[in-house]
Amino acid sequence: MTNLRFGLIGTGFMGKAHAIALQSVGTVFPAVAAPKLDCLVDADLGRARNLAAAWGFARSGDDWQALCADPDIDVVDICTPNHLHKEMALAAAAAGKHIYCEKPLALSGPEAREIWQAAKAAGIRTSMGFNYMCNPLIGLAQEMIAAGELGEVFNFRGSYQEDYLSDSRSPFSWRCLRNQGGSGALNDLGTHLINMAEFLLGPMSSVYGSLTTVHSHRPDPTTGDLRAVENEDIAQVLVKFAQGSTGTMEISRVATGKKCGLDFEVHGTKGALMFDQERMNEIRLYQVDDAEGRRGHRTILSGPEHEDYANFCPAPGHGLGINDLKIIEVRNFLNSISTDTAIHCDFQNGWRVQAIVDAIEHSHLNQEWADVSEGQLLK
Amino acid sequence: MTNLRFGLIGTGFMGKAHAIALQSVGTVFPAVAAPKLDCLVDADLGRARNLAAAWGFARSGDDWQALCADPDIDVVDICTPNHLHKEMALAAAAAGKHIYCEKPLALSGPEAREIWQAAKAAGIRTSMGFNYMCNPLIGLAQEMIAAGELGEVFNFRGSYQEDYLSDSRSPFSWRCLRNQGGSGALNDLGTHLINMAEFLLGPMSSVYGSLTTVHSHRPDPTTGDLRAVENEDIAQVLVKFAQGSTGTMEISRVATGKKCGLDFEVHGTKGALMFDQERMNEIRLYQVDDAEGRRGHRTILSGPEHEDYANFCPAPGHGLGINDLKIIEVRNFLNSISTDTAIHCDFQNGWRVQAIVDAIEHSHLNQEWADVSEGQLLK
Amino acid sequence: MTNLRFGLIGTGFMGKAHAIALQSVGTVFPAVAAPKLDCLVDADLGRARNLAAAWGFARSGDDWQALCADPDIDVVDICTPNHLHKEMALAAAAAGKHIYCEKPLALSGPEAREIWQAAKAAGIRTSMGFNYMCNPLIGLAQEMIAAGELGEVFNFRGSYQEDYLSDSRSPFSWRCLRNQGGSGALNDLGTHLINMAEFLLGPMSSVYGSLTTVHSHRPDPTTGDLRAVENEDIAQVLVKFAQGSTGTMEISRVATGKKCGLDFEVHGTKGALMFDQERMNEIRLYQVDDAEGRRGHRTILSGPEHEDYANFCPAPGHGLGINDLKIIEVRNFLNSISTDTAIHCDFQNGWRVQAIVDAIEHSHLNQEWADVSEGQLLK
Amino acid sequence: MTNLRFGLIGTGFMGKAHAIALQSVGTVFPAVAAPKLDCLVDADLGRARNLAAAWGFARSGDDWQALCADPDIDVVDICTPNHLHKEMALAAAAAGKHIYCEKPLALSGPEAREIWQAAKAAGIRTSMGFNYMCNPLIGLAQEMIAAGELGEVFNFRGSYQEDYLSDSRSPFSWRCLRNQGGSGALNDLGTHLINMAEFLLGPMSSVYGSLTTVHSHRPDPTTGDLRAVENEDIAQVLVKFAQGSTGTMEISRVATGKKCGLDFEVHGTKGALMFDQERMNEIRLYQVDDAEGRRGHRTILSGPEHEDYANFCPAPGHGLGINDLKIIEVRNFLNSISTDTAIHCDFQNGWRVQAIVDAIEHSHLNQEWADVSEGQLLK
Repeated sequence: MTNLRFGLIGTGFMGKAHAIALQSVGTVFPAVAAPKLDCLVDADLGRARNLAAAWGFARSGDDWQALCADPDIDVVDICTPNHLHKEMALAAAAAGKHIYCEKPLALSGPEAREIWQAAKAAGIRTSMGFNYMCNPLIGLAQEMIAAGELGEVFNFRGSYQEDYLSDSRSPFSWRCLRNQGGSGALNDLGTHLINMAEFLLGPMSSVYGSLTTVHSHRPDPTTGDLRAVENEDIAQVLVKFAQGSTGTMEISRVATGKKCGLDFEVHGTKGALMFDQERMNEIRLYQVDDAEGRRGHRTILSGPEHEDYANFCPAPGHGLGINDLKIIEVRNFLNSISTDTAIHCDFQNGWRVQAIVDAIEHSHLNQEWADVSEGQLLK
Repeated sequence: MTNLRFGLIGTGFMGKAHAIALQSVGTVFPAVAAPKLDCLVDADLGRARNLAAAWGFARSGDDWQALCADPDIDVVDICTPNHLHKEMALAAAAAGKHIYCEKPLALSGPEAREIWQAAKAAGIRTSMGFNYMCNPLIGLAQEMIAAGELGEVFNFRGSYQEDYLSDSRSPFSWRCLRNQGGSGALNDLGTHLINMAEFLLGPMSSVYGSLTTVHSHRPDPTTGDLRAVENEDIAQVLVKFAQGSTGTMEISRVATGKKCGLDFEVHGTKGALMFDQERMNEIRLYQVDDAEGRRGHRTILSGPEHEDYANFCPAPGHGLGINDLKIIEVRNFLNSISTDTAIHCDFQNGWRVQAIVDAIEHSHLNQEWADVSEGQLLK
Repeated sequence: MTNLRFGLIGTGFMGKAHAIALQSVGTVFPAVAAPKLDCLVDADLGRARNLAAAWGFARSGDDWQALCADPDIDVVDICTPNHLHKEMALAAAAAGKHIYCEKPLALSGPEAREIWQAAKAAGIRTSMGFNYMCNPLIGLAQEMIAAGELGEVFNFRGSYQEDYLSDSRSPFSWRCLRNQGGSGALNDLGTHLINMAEFLLGPMSSVYGSLTTVHSHRPDPTTGDLRAVENEDIAQVLVKFAQGSTGTMEISRVATGKKCGLDFEVHGTKGALMFDQERMNEIRLYQVDDAEGRRGHRTILSGPEHEDYANFCPAPGHGLGINDLKIIEVRNFLNSISTDTAIHCDFQNGWRVQAIVDAIEHSHLNQEWADVSEGQLLK
Repeated sequence: MTNLRFGLIGTGFMGKAHAIALQSVGTVFPAVAAPKLDCLVDADLGRARNLAAAWGFARSGDDWQALCADPDIDVVDICTPNHLHKEMALAAAAAGKHIYCEKPLALSGPEAREIWQAAKAAGIRTSMGFNYMCNPLIGLAQEMIAAGELGEVFNFRGSYQEDYLSDSRSPFSWRCLRNQGGSGALNDLGTHLINMAEFLLGPMSSVYGSLTTVHSHRPDPTTGDLRAVENEDIAQVLVKFAQGSTGTMEISRVATGKKCGLDFEVHGTKGALMFDQERMNEIRLYQVDDAEGRRGHRTILSGPEHEDYANFCPAPGHGLGINDLKIIEVRNFLNSISTDTAIHCDFQNGWRVQAIVDAIEHSHLNQEWADVSEGQLLK
């Protein structure tokens, strides 16, 4: 086991979350070799320097290209705004670095595909930042479905709703621009939900989307002038899965009152599951074979019986947080590198999710169902 | 105020619910003249006779045509299976009786339209059995939306899910036949949801539907032979409303674990509402103008501040039940007759809902959005 | 089966609830003979007359003594303020009428005992108005405990909290006077909770109470002058049960935000139950023998598998209301009379609950545990 | 700002939690100087060595006395079983080290007092491990109460229930012995609840306790022989607070189904709060001044508006976990040392809580209320 040397680009929301996770993963999971927090890069050098000190990085810099080329770096960790992912990932892949990239992988399917292919050609290991999947209770859900505990699964009803842009006066940002954020709610939130749906039920086969921009204009944060929003606030999607199930997905960045409303229901012939990220430490299970008059959704609290939980806390019901999911995500990636085996949320997966986002947009524009089978997407 | 004489046809689930409501409405609402439970009709005369005695009807019979023609009857109350509604309603209208009919009004839009037109021509008062709308908390929701308390409403996310047919071994019934039940989940459950959505947000303008039959065959209850199910188990619908809002509706009769899952979220620029019929005595309200750090969905328990509740109980939070909603529904209808004014849930409304069901089916078959504006539906 | 003739005294909250239940019971439960709503009595004759017409009573009056003596009355139903129960019940018993009396039976244990003894001597059937026990889910709880489904039960944690007097400006009423209301929160709400606890776990053996009057004075509704409150707003009680279990009870009429907060947890060696009357259509069950990693409290919705529910509605999860519990209560009493067998909530039970209230007050005043074994209470 | 050098004793549940927190605190809170994880001590030297490597400690050892005397250590962090706290803390204090000690501080009030006094005499800074208080939502609760947002607070109803010993076959451990665990549920769980109650409402003035040992014997984990349990499984406590409020506390280590059931309600004249640690990212607030018909408990999700949350995550509702509370606790202690000012949860507080535990036991044994005013406890 070697201590992989990480170079982290970006110091915002996700940059910090990654730093915390890199710091803690070796303590939480003693079985993995703790990564070395080697270099922190930010366009603002002073900020990089200060935060490197605070966050425990050995070095800092403002040149991400140098970082990608640096022979003392094993892993490039990309936590920058969406439109920067591509260039950085391609450079890191070219230099043979393993890459950890926040979602979404890119602004479009073709762009994501290029990144994935470059990574594949370079023979490196990759990981996306789809942290919600690392929840021990999501692992339980996946395991139960795979083991047939719900019988034949025939429906998925999911949503990911937040309200960070529900106020029409919320300022215009790069997220509202096609060439910086890509699509809107879909790229930011929908990618998580698409990934979750496929993690649980397997690949989708077709989608039908309807996109809406509720607030067409937003004030520029500097000038106050209204600027036109270029992507959707709400995406409503009908889905069919390859295994035969049907489904729906609703994605919104304007869902008043929702803070982290990634929730879903899965219906099977023997049972059902319900989950809501806002109560991430519980999942609800219904089993048709429970005794008559005593059937109901049981609220399972996360605990040491569920994979990975015990590494954080030996006592059940004490609660994990969002940053703990990131620690599990990092552990998964470290294992992926050390064993040289792929994980579910790699760049291929990142591409696939992105291609489905494209298909949803295509469907919306053409008002027709879009085929998202692997064969079709790879065409 | 005269005591209207009711003739009730049908003694199943809804027949009994109507009987209970007719019995109680005068006590709960002393302001209305209690209806007279005059005649109970069932195809099985012995059953009609026994239940008439138990339920407090003065007379009984097995001839619904005679009932419709009976000069001593003021109101014909139809609680029979879907496919019988039309003939009975037309006969009652022809005889000039007011009509109270359980949902759905008919098996199709044209059929429903014929009924509505007949009622209109006869100058009678009519009421549908859309009881969920009579919940004081739904009244509150409608009132808040109308008053702008949620700001501009831009999204509706609703579902009505039950699991009464989730088991593939559940026997085949008339509900699975086009010519007896009409559509499947849509006609049984979707009509409630469509009506709820329009009651809250106003008329829909277009719909896009996707229908699925999860269990294609079911055992005949007598022979045990598998019979082909002719209508959908699940309907997933994208919606646009005339006032500009978008929405989704999911309707299922196979949603494992759901017992009366009529729920919705409404998002507006100033607030949001969440409701779930399985907890029919509470509604959740989010207001963006609440103080910082103290915002959240508040769970409002039904109480005497909400219209009609105090007639059942002067103390808040004590809880109404489904049969109480039926009592309010009957009160609304009695008022409609005594004041000779239409109510929201009359036959025009019953037709409109039915026509939207047709449009959803049309959309599904043709994979295109269907226009459901009043003008289009009336063509 | 004869149609018992009811004479109802009192037209307030409970008077109306009784009238509704008497109206509906025969329809909901066709197996029982519907009672005859014979005579409605109120001190205000005009009110009695008007409401008798609206509520379907054949006669009305303002003389409860005449009612008690009336040979055409089989059952006297007492829905008057607490301090009037005794005189009325004694008169009804003396006349050999069956008696249905709202809780609390009386203002004190000795008074309640006198009533119970008179009823016993008269050989009549009696019923208290402890409606919460009639909930099918409480029946389920009792049945599960009795059958050992929770293993050995060793703890009960219950509360009944409302906030109808939480505002210090809420006007002074008869409930604040010892000689009209008896004790405060204990007599009004605590009696329900004590009864519930004993219904589930069997008789208590000793209690320790602590009483608090939060608002010592309240404005007279007419003069506005402050008057001294004579009884407690909050009662906190430690309990031991004869079967060995321990417990607590908290009763409050000033619990800000609570509307009908009758809730409890029961812990046993094999499982646990949690209930909250504000969500009266669900009960939560935890079973230690559920599979590892899949254990949790399951939320059971009331449905036709639970006793009596199907009489109201054949579909699960549709919801009963508080008035439905009253209908079940009346059915129980009708059965008690027709079969001449006692029910759980008879006057002996009403006395016992009252005697425990006295014991709690005694314990509070003397700061010592009070023995509430049957032998001790009967001394 | 200097980087304080920590020596951590103990590598169990809490040892690991402390290690994770020490690792992360500097990253989460860049404003504090990250502590140096200097030396990890465990009685098992091999374990100490291995975990020191995994957890990022520079050194390891098996001699806690040497650690306490080590001039290169600034802070001694005690995470050993309860009965070892005293000796270690006294040694650390004697050596002038700052001390961070897990709860409970000791096995009894006098023992805790001795520790506190030694720390005071040594002029060091101290912190207890009452992590639940570090929840941003508990901070909000405390702030709201202090600011009068709930009006005059008059009642507290709290419990801390878990079920880790609910199975009578759960093995005997040091927790069941007076001379190793001290009291039972009280010392393990009750200390948290007592501290929480006083943090929110200020000092208690008197307590009345009732203790129960549900499972009197448990199997020895090695021999299987039944051994007598020496302390309580359940403690039920009546409380009075100095500011005039009343309250109850229920503490159990055998509450079937409860995993981390630290919950409370606080009632005031203007509002109420409800909290449950099993849903640690939400708190429920009721305000009497909300608009009529729109009042209800609002569920506030933790977010960046609440103190400290934003350091973990800029987005609301994403959820903190139990280990995050520990990070805040460490930050509080680092601040306490760097600014040389006391924090709420110091050893004086640790002693006070312990003395109240003693008073509850005394009350139980003598069946009388125990005075827990500061003056009385200090006698």
